[in-house]
Amino acid sequence: MAGFKHLLIVKFKEDVVVEDILKGMQKLVSEIDAVKSFEWGQDIEGEEMLRQGFTHAFLMTFEDKQGYTAFVGHPCHVEFSATFSTAIDKIVLLDFPSVVAKAAT
Amino acid sequence: MAGFKHLLIVKFKEDVVVEDILKGMQKLVSEIDAVKSFEWGQDIEGEEMLRQGFTHAFLMTFEDKQGYTAFVGHPCHVEFSATFSTAIDKIVLLDFPSVVAKAAT
Repeated sequence: MAGFKHLLIVKFKEDVVVEDILKGMQKLVSEIDAVKSFEWGQDIEGEEMLRQGFTHAFLMTFEDKQGYTAFVGHPCHVEFSATFSTAIDKIVLLDFPSVVAKAAT
Repeated sequence: MAGFKHLLIVKFKEDVVVEDILKGMQKLVSEIDAVKSFEWGQDIEGEEMLRQGFTHAFLMTFEDKQGYTAFVGHPCHVEFSATFSTAIDKIVLLDFPSVVAKAAT
């Protein structure tokens, strides 16, 4: 689906149990209706030179920017963000209205 | 959809006409059947500190890793990559099997 996207690419700190973070994230998106879809992945394929240490991508979809704003301000998100930010070594975050240039059939 | 994802986040060089790159990319994904869906976006919302100069995200979906491999080796992709790589200031690239943790309804 198109909509408004919230994309994170992340390198976690070495001592972080990624499984725990994923559980927290799963709980978060299930608690907040504004999150219409959530998918993620771990790069186990790419070349280190191209992924530059980043290992995980997380992509959330909202109906529109209002949905995203509601998510950001939601108490559960505020609480989770505090935990999440202690777990990351580095992060890039992009928020954008999605343009679907080729649709899944 | 789940499947195998090819994610790029990019900062283009200053003199690049992004519109031309987008046209080339659009042509590329229309030429290669293995690309099941393609969406992209430009971050005009986020905080510079969090997006670290990156402005564009491109996300392609393949049925599986074989589809992705076919795409990478396709002559049109090889040709386009050569042009694309001259246009970028910096890039991070992640390839991963996607886990759908909350499905669009």
